[in-house]
Amino acid sequence: MPILVMKFGGTSVADLDRIANAAEKVKREVERGYDVIVIVSAMAGKTNELVKWVNDTSGFYDAREYDAVVSSGENVTAGLMALRLQEMGVPARSWQGWQVPINTTSAHGSARFVSIPRENLDSKFAEGFKVAVVAGFQGVSHEHRITTLGRGGSDTTAVAFAAAFDAERCDIYTDVDGVYTTDPRITSKARKLDKISYEEMLELASLGAKVLQTRSVELAMRYKVRLRVLSSFDETDETSGTLVCDEEEIMESKVVSGVAHSRDEAKITLFTIEDRPGIAAAIFGPLADAGVNVDMIVQNISEKDYDAAHSGAVTDMTFSCPVDQVKLATRAMEEAKAAGKIKYDELIIDTDVSKVSVVGIGMRSHAGVAARMFKALSAENINIKVISTSEIKISVLIDRKYMELAVQTLHDAFALESAV
Amino acid sequence: MPILVMKFGGTSVADLDRIANAAEKVKREVERGYDVIVIVSAMAGKTNELVKWVNDTSGFYDAREYDAVVSSGENVTAGLMALRLQEMGVPARSWQGWQVPINTTSAHGSARFVSIPRENLDSKFAEGFKVAVVAGFQGVSHEHRITTLGRGGSDTTAVAFAAAFDAERCDIYTDVDGVYTTDPRITSKARKLDKISYEEMLELASLGAKVLQTRSVELAMRYKVRLRVLSSFDETDETSGTLVCDEEEIMESKVVSGVAHSRDEAKITLFTIEDRPGIAAAIFGPLADAGVNVDMIVQNISEKDYDAAHSGAVTDMTFSCPVDQVKLATRAMEEAKAAGKIKYDELIIDTDVSKVSVVGIGMRSHAGVAARMFKALSAENINIKVISTSEIKISVLIDRKYMELAVQTLHDAFALESAV
Repeated sequence: MPILVMKFGGTSVADLDRIANAAEKVKREVERGYDVIVIVSAMAGKTNELVKWVNDTSGFYDAREYDAVVSSGENVTAGLMALRLQEMGVPARSWQGWQVPINTTSAHGSARFVSIPRENLDSKFAEGFKVAVVAGFQGVSHEHRITTLGRGGSDTTAVAFAAAFDAERCDIYTDVDGVYTTDPRITSKARKLDKISYEEMLELASLGAKVLQTRSVELAMRYKVRLRVLSSFDETDETSGTLVCDEEEIMESKVVSGVAHSRDEAKITLFTIEDRPGIAAAIFGPLADAGVNVDMIVQNISEKDYDAAHSGAVTDMTFSCPVDQVKLATRAMEEAKAAGKIKYDELIIDTDVSKVSVVGIGMRSHAGVAARMFKALSAENINIKVISTSEIKISVLIDRKYMELAVQTLHDAFALESAV
Repeated sequence: MPILVMKFGGTSVADLDRIANAAEKVKREVERGYDVIVIVSAMAGKTNELVKWVNDTSGFYDAREYDAVVSSGENVTAGLMALRLQEMGVPARSWQGWQVPINTTSAHGSARFVSIPRENLDSKFAEGFKVAVVAGFQGVSHEHRITTLGRGGSDTTAVAFAAAFDAERCDIYTDVDGVYTTDPRITSKARKLDKISYEEMLELASLGAKVLQTRSVELAMRYKVRLRVLSSFDETDETSGTLVCDEEEIMESKVVSGVAHSRDEAKITLFTIEDRPGIAAAIFGPLADAGVNVDMIVQNISEKDYDAAHSGAVTDMTFSCPVDQVKLATRAMEEAKAAGKIKYDELIIDTDVSKVSVVGIGMRSHAGVAARMFKALSAENINIKVISTSEIKISVLIDRKYMELAVQTLHDAFALESAV
C-alpha cells in the first residue's frame, strides 16, 4: 500500500468535534487506498497549560522532566484520534514516541531525530491496521527518557515519518488553506500558490511566514518529501492547498513567487569603529553569546584617518535584529566596549523599521529583479535603509509606516495576483 | 539505604500547592535517611476529564486506547513532583510505567502485575538520586502497550513497589487521617485506630470503608507489606495515621475492632423454589452473568410437599445486593424463570435495608460476640432481617432508618471509644 502522512496541528484537534472532523479526512484517504500515518499535536492550549505548570513549579527546570510532562498532551490526542477512527470503522492504533520508537538525541527540549525504525508500524499495517496515529513533537533518548523537539516539532515529526516510510506525500493540515504570494491581510490581491519550491518556502518561513517551521522544510528538502499545506477546516481534495516540492516539479515559475514581511525589526548602527581584521568577530561574537538573532549586516566602505581622534582606517557597522532584542544587543555592545574589545563613537538605534522581501527561484536566471524592486519602491517615495540579498531573495529595511504600502507595491510590480 | 514507599492520591496532588506540600513530606523522609519511591495519582479531576473524552469519542471503546489516554494524568503529576523535589534540592527522577518497567498482563483497564524489575530504579538510586517518582495506576504489557490497573490502582501500585523493593513501609497519604472504629460522621465517639490487622482491614474495605482498595490490602497481606494510612493535609510524623500490619504486630487486640456499614442495600427473596441439588447454581449463575454483586445469601429450611401445586421439597432463597442493581437482578431472575431454568411463586424486593457489620480478629478466640451484637440491637428494638458471618465478621441487614442507631449502639456495646 502507498503510505500517506497527515499532520494535524493544535487548532485542528482543539476539541472532540475537530478531532472527529480530522478523522473524517483520514478515513477518506484510507478509502483512496492509502495506509496512513497521522501525526497529531496536543489539543490547542494544552501544551501551554503544561508548560505553565512546569514554570510555576520550577524556575530552572530539569529539561528531562519538562519533556516528560509537556509531551503528555500529544499522547491524549493520539489515543482519542485512534478511538474516533475505530468508531468510524477504520482500524487504527495510537503510538507514543517510545513505542515506535522515535529515536532522538538527548538534547531535551530541542532533540533531533536519530532514527525511526519501520518494523513496529509496518507489522501493524501488515496485520490489517490502516492508520497509525503518532504523537508528534516527541521522541525517546537512548537513556529511555522522553524527549521533545521544540516548538513546531510536530511538523518536523511528520516530515521525518514521511522520509522514513517513503510516503507518497506529507499533508500538513492547519488553519490556513495554503501558502500565499503575500499576507492576504495586507492585500486582497494575495493569491494562493498551487506549488512552491523548497528553497522558496525556506526563505519565506525564515522571513516570517508562519505556515511551516523552517526545520521541517529543511528536512523535507533534504529527503525530497513532497509537502502539502492545506486547511483542516475546509472541504479538501487532492488538489487543495499548496504543494511544497522540488523545483523540477514546478513547470512554470515566475521570477518572483512571493513578498514576505517582518514588521518589528530594529536597526542598530555602530559609528566609527576600527576597520581591521577580526572586527566583525569582535562585534558579532558577543551578540551571539547574548542570544541576539542578528539578521541583516551591512558594513560601510572604509575611511582612512577619519579625524584626529582616529588613527588608521575606520568604518560603520549596521545590523538588524527583532525589536524585542534591542536591549539585549545594546547591553552586549556596551559591555564589549567597556571591556576594551571594541571601540565605537556612537550607537544609533532605530526601532521603527520593517523588513520587506521578494523571494523567487526565478531570480537565479533573471537579472534585473533588484532594479525592478528598487524602482517600484522609489516610485512610492519609500526610502530603503538597508539592503541584503541571497541567491533567491532580496530584502530591504524600510520605515515601518510604509510596510503595507511596500508589500502592495511589490505585489503589483511583480504581477503576483495572476498565476502566469 | 532503607527504602520507603509513599503514595499520594488525587486530592493530595490536586494542584501545584498540594504537590509542593506532598514534596515537603517526601523531603522529610529523605532527610530521615530513606531512599523514597513516590507513587502519584493524577491531579484530582484529570482522570475523570480524560475518561469523559474517551466516552464521548467512542461508545464501545478499545481498552488499549482508553489506557493510553487515561494514563497520561499520572505522568503529568510524576514529572511535576520530580521538578518540585529538584527545586527543593532533592535529586529526583520521574518514571512512567514503561520506563520502570511495570510489567503487567494485557487485561487493559484491569491489568495485574507480572513483575517489577528493580534494576533501573536501583541504578538511579546508586547514582545518587534520592527519590523515584512513579506514575501510579499504570503499567506496560508484553506488547509494549500501556495498561491501567482499574480504579484505586495507585494504592495497588504502591504496595507492589513496596513488595518488590523490600520497603520498610508503604505510606498511603490520603484525605483522612487514618482508619476509624466507625464512620466519624455517624458517631463522634469514633476513634482512630493506631494499628489494624490485614484481615480486619480487608473486611472493612469490602464492607464499604473507602480508605483503601481491597486489592491493595490483599497484596499487602500476601507480601507482608506494612501499610500506613495517613493524612496529606496534616502535619505528620512517624506515629501518625493507622498502621495496617500483621496481627502479630498488634499486642493488645479488642474482640471487635470496628463497625462498618453499607447504606444502600436491597434484599430480594424468591419464594417457594424447588429444593433440589443445583438450584443455587441455577439462581446465582444468571445473576453473576448479569453482573449483579450478590453479597449475603440465606436459604430457609426445606418444607416437603408445601401444597398441592408443589410436589417435592420447596424452600425460599434470600440474597442482598446494592440497591442500584435491583433492576438487573430482577430481569435476570425473570428471564431465568421464562426460560424454564428456575421456578418461583413470587419475587419480593425490599430496597429499604442497610448492612451493619462488626469486625475483629478477636472473634476467632472469643465466643459470644454474635449474641452480644444481637442483644444490643434487640435492646433498641432493631429487627434483624438477614444474618451472615465469616471468621472475623458478623453482618446483619436491618431497616435503613435504623442504620445510624445500630452503628452507634454497636460502637457502645463493644466499648470501641476506648483504646483498651
